[in-house]
Amino acid sequence: MKVFKISVKISLKPELFDPEGKTIERAINRLGIYVNHTRVSKVVEFEIEAEDREEALERVQTIASKLLSNPVLHKYTIEITEK
Amino acid sequence: MKVFKISVKISLKPELFDPEGKTIERAINRLGIYVNHTRVSKVVEFEIEAEDREEALERVQTIASKLLSNPVLHKYTIEITEK
Repeated sequence: MKVFKISVKISLKPELFDPEGKTIERAINRLGIYVNHTRVSKVVEFEIEAEDREEALERVQTIASKLLSNPVLHKYTIEITEK
Repeated sequence: MKVFKISVKISLKPELFDPEGKTIERAINRLGIYVNHTRVSKVVEFEIEAEDREEALERVQTIASKLLSNPVLHKYTIEITEK
């Protein structure tokens, strides 16, 4: 068995309004620094054991789609590195 | 002026207990998939204009330290790419 380090980034779909991002953007602008297109995502990192990268990816896709994201609201990206 | 795409990742310091990560880990394990060392971070992405990379980085460090993170609890990493 190999150990893989996993990072799943869960973001609102780009066409959806991101109220948390907008609030942060206003607060940054109040610091006197102008920024735009502010978006907030969540990253969940963990370690998983699997025979190979394909097996690890399959399990992580199950985790990401069933538990970490809502298909109506979110998109997710997965990074896998062997430890 | 150049436009830079910024990503600031804010994580709990590694020595601190991450209750959200632990809760997610238990939920994953209830799916029948064993994972460990689960940690949750937040990523704030935005665009900023600056004369050069150094000026952009300086402003983003101000944003990250004054607004996005608490030095007692968090560490942060910054990624900058020119658009």
